[in-house]
Amino acid sequence: MKKSTIALALATLFVAVPVRAEPGLSTIEARLAALEHRLQVAEQRASAAEIRAEAAEKQAQQLATVQQQTPPAPTDVAQRSAKPELKPSADAGGFEFHGYARSGLLMNSSAAKTQGGPTLTPAGETGGHVGRLGNEPDTYVELNLEHKQTLTNGVTTRFKAMLADGQRTYNDWTADSSDLNLRQAFVEIGQLPTFDGAFKDSTVWAGKRFDRDNFDIHWIDSDVVFLAGTGAGFYDIRWGDRARSNLSVYGRTFGDIENNENSAQNYILSLNNFVGPVQLMMSGMRARDNDDREDIDGNKIKSDAANTGVHALLGLHNDSFYGLTDGSAKTALLYGHGLGAEVKSVGSDGALLPQADSWRLASYGITALGDGWHIAPALLAQHSQDRYVKGDSYDWATVNLRLIQEMTQNFEMQYEGSYQYMDLRPEGYRNRNAVSGSFTKLTVAPTLKAGDVGDFLKRPEIRLFASWMNWDHRLDNYASDDAFGSKGFEAGGEWNFGVQMETWF
Amino acid sequence: MKKSTIALALATLFVAVPVRAEPGLSTIEARLAALEHRLQVAEQRASAAEIRAEAAEKQAQQLATVQQQTPPAPTDVAQRSAKPELKPSADAGGFEFHGYARSGLLMNSSAAKTQGGPTLTPAGETGGHVGRLGNEPDTYVELNLEHKQTLTNGVTTRFKAMLADGQRTYNDWTADSSDLNLRQAFVEIGQLPTFDGAFKDSTVWAGKRFDRDNFDIHWIDSDVVFLAGTGAGFYDIRWGDRARSNLSVYGRTFGDIENNENSAQNYILSLNNFVGPVQLMMSGMRARDNDDREDIDGNKIKSDAANTGVHALLGLHNDSFYGLTDGSAKTALLYGHGLGAEVKSVGSDGALLPQADSWRLASYGITALGDGWHIAPALLAQHSQDRYVKGDSYDWATVNLRLIQEMTQNFEMQYEGSYQYMDLRPEGYRNRNAVSGSFTKLTVAPTLKAGDVGDFLKRPEIRLFASWMNWDHRLDNYASDDAFGSKGFEAGGEWNFGVQMETWF
Amino acid sequence: MKKSTIALALATLFVAVPVRAEPGLSTIEARLAALEHRLQVAEQRASAAEIRAEAAEKQAQQLATVQQQTPPAPTDVAQRSAKPELKPSADAGGFEFHGYARSGLLMNSSAAKTQGGPTLTPAGETGGHVGRLGNEPDTYVELNLEHKQTLTNGVTTRFKAMLADGQRTYNDWTADSSDLNLRQAFVEIGQLPTFDGAFKDSTVWAGKRFDRDNFDIHWIDSDVVFLAGTGAGFYDIRWGDRARSNLSVYGRTFGDIENNENSAQNYILSLNNFVGPVQLMMSGMRARDNDDREDIDGNKIKSDAANTGVHALLGLHNDSFYGLTDGSAKTALLYGHGLGAEVKSVGSDGALLPQADSWRLASYGITALGDGWHIAPALLAQHSQDRYVKGDSYDWATVNLRLIQEMTQNFEMQYEGSYQYMDLRPEGYRNRNAVSGSFTKLTVAPTLKAGDVGDFLKRPEIRLFASWMNWDHRLDNYASDDAFGSKGFEAGGEWNFGVQMETWF
Repeated sequence: MKKSTIALALATLFVAVPVRAEPGLSTIEARLAALEHRLQVAEQRASAAEIRAEAAEKQAQQLATVQQQTPPAPTDVAQRSAKPELKPSADAGGFEFHGYARSGLLMNSSAAKTQGGPTLTPAGETGGHVGRLGNEPDTYVELNLEHKQTLTNGVTTRFKAMLADGQRTYNDWTADSSDLNLRQAFVEIGQLPTFDGAFKDSTVWAGKRFDRDNFDIHWIDSDVVFLAGTGAGFYDIRWGDRARSNLSVYGRTFGDIENNENSAQNYILSLNNFVGPVQLMMSGMRARDNDDREDIDGNKIKSDAANTGVHALLGLHNDSFYGLTDGSAKTALLYGHGLGAEVKSVGSDGALLPQADSWRLASYGITALGDGWHIAPALLAQHSQDRYVKGDSYDWATVNLRLIQEMTQNFEMQYEGSYQYMDLRPEGYRNRNAVSGSFTKLTVAPTLKAGDVGDFLKRPEIRLFASWMNWDHRLDNYASDDAFGSKGFEAGGEWNFGVQMETWF
Repeated sequence: MKKSTIALALATLFVAVPVRAEPGLSTIEARLAALEHRLQVAEQRASAAEIRAEAAEKQAQQLATVQQQTPPAPTDVAQRSAKPELKPSADAGGFEFHGYARSGLLMNSSAAKTQGGPTLTPAGETGGHVGRLGNEPDTYVELNLEHKQTLTNGVTTRFKAMLADGQRTYNDWTADSSDLNLRQAFVEIGQLPTFDGAFKDSTVWAGKRFDRDNFDIHWIDSDVVFLAGTGAGFYDIRWGDRARSNLSVYGRTFGDIENNENSAQNYILSLNNFVGPVQLMMSGMRARDNDDREDIDGNKIKSDAANTGVHALLGLHNDSFYGLTDGSAKTALLYGHGLGAEVKSVGSDGALLPQADSWRLASYGITALGDGWHIAPALLAQHSQDRYVKGDSYDWATVNLRLIQEMTQNFEMQYEGSYQYMDLRPEGYRNRNAVSGSFTKLTVAPTLKAGDVGDFLKRPEIRLFASWMNWDHRLDNYASDDAFGSKGFEAGGEWNFGVQMETWF
Repeated sequence: MKKSTIALALATLFVAVPVRAEPGLSTIEARLAALEHRLQVAEQRASAAEIRAEAAEKQAQQLATVQQQTPPAPTDVAQRSAKPELKPSADAGGFEFHGYARSGLLMNSSAAKTQGGPTLTPAGETGGHVGRLGNEPDTYVELNLEHKQTLTNGVTTRFKAMLADGQRTYNDWTADSSDLNLRQAFVEIGQLPTFDGAFKDSTVWAGKRFDRDNFDIHWIDSDVVFLAGTGAGFYDIRWGDRARSNLSVYGRTFGDIENNENSAQNYILSLNNFVGPVQLMMSGMRARDNDDREDIDGNKIKSDAANTGVHALLGLHNDSFYGLTDGSAKTALLYGHGLGAEVKSVGSDGALLPQADSWRLASYGITALGDGWHIAPALLAQHSQDRYVKGDSYDWATVNLRLIQEMTQNFEMQYEGSYQYMDLRPEGYRNRNAVSGSFTKLTVAPTLKAGDVGDFLKRPEIRLFASWMNWDHRLDNYASDDAFGSKGFEAGGEWNFGVQMETWF
């Protein structure tokens, strides 16, 4: 019943009242009629109230039943809210579970073991990834356990620990080959009331981590830039509405940590600036005594290794498909020198020469083509010279194209074409031979999705796939211990088949 | 509105009634005035009721909205309250934590280290487990982290990761001997709206896992069948009200994954059918080039190893104690040939001969005897021939009997008798000697339980125990590196004592 | 009120309406009677609606209160439903997540690798820790996953598993050096209704664990006493209002668990009593055949090792700063003999002689000095003789002082001075040389806190630090493989710098 109806009823009442001053049968008739009308209204209203109260009772009762089944937790939470630092995160609040996982089967056309992975070409050693669809033999898992809280003073805290493992065995018990390790463990503190100005919304962090603003080309399983290690820094120092900077210092370790003479520490100072869609990241690094590292026999490990390096990235983060149509795109140009010449995994390669120079161009975009088709082209190219031996060079370029064709709300066809050209001249480094040539992979993957068919970046997915790969015979000759040219995996056309799940959350 | 006001209104009504005996205009006026007053009161009350009911409805509706966003958990929780030991620790969100753990002390009659475990007899090498009560020296833990969601299109997704470790050291810091590894990592997608007919309620999965429909004999810590590995498949393709099938493909790896020449992949195709209480599981497998595997010196590892195999299981799942009385029972007959001759851990043994034949009979039941006594008999017997060497045979049979005597609502006595006869003829394989003979174990275990005393399958439990074991002297002679005949652990009667916790949730 | 009654009331209404065409007193009487009846009905209905609406309101309000205590989860859940793949999964059930973590950078004045850690002095080998502030090079993490429940019979259960890892490499992927291991896995059962008298509120436990009532001096990262291993026991047997006891048995393992001849098991029986602020802990232990352990060549590992030991701790737990002012303090005197002579890590050292004697004195306090200053002095001193070789002695004493100066609500200055004197006479054991001398460390650490500035035991913290250390030249000579005297780390004054996070929850 509407309020206006009630108001009308009340108005009727007050209008009726003055009439009572002059009683008579006609007046009585009128008043009775009015009463009848009002009574009818009252009855309807009472009836409606009953029905609605009944429904409310029922709902409240159902909810009460549900909530009485979990009584301890709310009480715990209430106590914790009072002094959040000492109380555990047993709760609806502080705990979060995130993860990434892929796992599946990869077999050749004889249903036997085969080679795979985005780094299977000779260029893979220096970061030359190729398309990953229908090309992954491993079970790789990241489990993230987080504890978050917001204190009464408004400060936010976050602790994150990541356990990760990668396995190529299909067996369940993998203790012998286990690589399970703690890849991240860091703390972030944000919204500090004593921070002001540019630091007002900044976050301070310390610990072991992947830098928050790393980004990747998902389809070739390669970061564009991957800054990681143990360190500390600030995120989101805001200079204006569209400008923000991160400042961080990261440490990395070169060599075997158990052997004191064999290890050196590389310290990286990095400034990462964003102005609207433009990113400019600049890093300098120093690893003192990196050229003095000795093996257990006292021999210098690499007496010409670099002790310093620089690294820069210029990026463009489009919220459209290269300004052409709806979608998104990211493009980056990277340069590194000395220890910075490993342009992706910044500061992680202690064998680089002081003269080493690397350039990398990376770009990818996502857009819809209409009629249930979606496209994501990607490019990753790198030139590297004087890398490990004076006069060496490692040049390669990968072009990758992923297509999705929506079939039903839970089923899509995925297609991927991947082409890589490489010209590698190691000058004898680690017994690698100079080779040049190209690699091609074509994949079709019928894919089952829980939802969001057509979205390149929604999971979980379960996919069947068939991949055809071929490459120049010359590439079989690069190394004796790599995939190309290994037993049963030679140039001339290889088929790989399999099934795989992938999820993140 | 107060009750007293209502009482007043009602009193006014009854006061008014006698007046009706003498009708007249003034009386009418009075009655009308009274009516008007009462009507006004009724209107106000109805109005108030409406407003309050409306508010209650709104609140209840808001609460309902919140709770409807997490519908599965409350139901789970409700079931957990009733029988908390069996149900998972599900929660308001998509996260679930499940686990299994046992840990405790095992010592001999001199309070010194001793031997133990369900596989301690020579038959243990081919799956001949004996009773586990009072016979476990290890800390074994499985931690399961799950992420579940129900999408708005009704699709359910599940990600499960299992971390597991087994340790025999009593020390807390076990980094040196750690076997911590990721045993499972898989995704399930169910309730797909585009699936119809027999597939309507089926679930699709992929990843590394234990098959969902494996089952075990808890009291001897042995699966009846254990299908596991990395693969994909369908669960619950329903052919009718009582008939359903699972279809799956699993990969397993033989040999050292780090040594490419040493490894082969075994692919298992399995069809698992259930019609009412009857189960028929049929599997075929192929491991190409398993007989071509070479060690690092280029020598064939086992040139007569099988490349293919078949496996079958016929099972009966009673919801009574063998049709005799209340309780439950499971019985299975298994046959395997070639690579399938490891009948429990399907496809996990790459050393089997093409001629290998194995038969296994497994059965157990649970029932109450009355007066607080409960009984669970179990039988596991296996015949295996031409297993690793032509002409070899491994025959054994275990009979196990577990009894529970309820004492109080938190305390029970557990008794276990375990007898095994074995006749093993390895024909020199791995320097094992032919032996035959029997093993006996008798255990008494005063047991503290959180609740559900008398239930064989409810945990946690903390138990003290004393076990007496004896075996034929001949069994000490099987191998130089196994438990029997090792220093201080010889035939003639051994006592083991200890305390242990066990839990699952 | 039934629908039929409403229908009747409405029927009465419509029956009455035609009568209105012929007005008259009798008609009026009839209509008034009908109105009265209907009004009475309306009143009853409104009354019922009120009562029911009131109840519904109350219930809805209670539910709202419950749900308001866990506000983040519902919101999260709501957001998750919309885009479930990206949002985390928090919960409210029996799960709890706890943890400890520290991680950061430590470098010398040349920004190169350095030595650090509270056990870096020669005394560190026998437990002689020094101040930890500005002196930690590692990433150490403990992740605790717990499952708790309260059964309908009031019984409480708890399962706890702890994963731990310590790493000195700064790199993120640490599979090669990973020490990730399962340090704890135990079950507790409490509030058993069948327990009475002194056992009424006691808790029974079994599994692998750190003893619940261990305590430490946080500032030097050393437990005062650390009882841990695999075992079982009772907590909180209450003899009176102020008196309670714990009874426990713990097993420890000496030697390499993989080598059966190399290992022995040490069983520790411990009684830990508390009367008001006084603690008396008494332990006896026996490791049968510890002196018979052999290496793989059959040589005795240490034929003069102890097989038994005793251990005692007398403690005082003040809820004031040594009775002087507000604050807290803990003091303990420990004595151990034979296997008990490792007085901190009870029963963990299998190399001790039967004659070994150790005394330890430990004390620390916390109090506020006013004006935003806080102080925490600590003392740890130990005398040990006939420890590993007859006639040896290991004496040391550490004095540590931590000061906090509050600056803002999120920022404090921390200062630490640490002094240790040691006189070590190993008599040639493990090629250690006799040395004596002192060590000094001074640290200043500007510290960012989420809140509770000035509280020594609240985390998370992110701190910068500069430490100056010096020690007697003689100490460089203790061992060739320890920190002092290693390359670039010699007496004469060393500066260490760094940044670190620390958290627990």
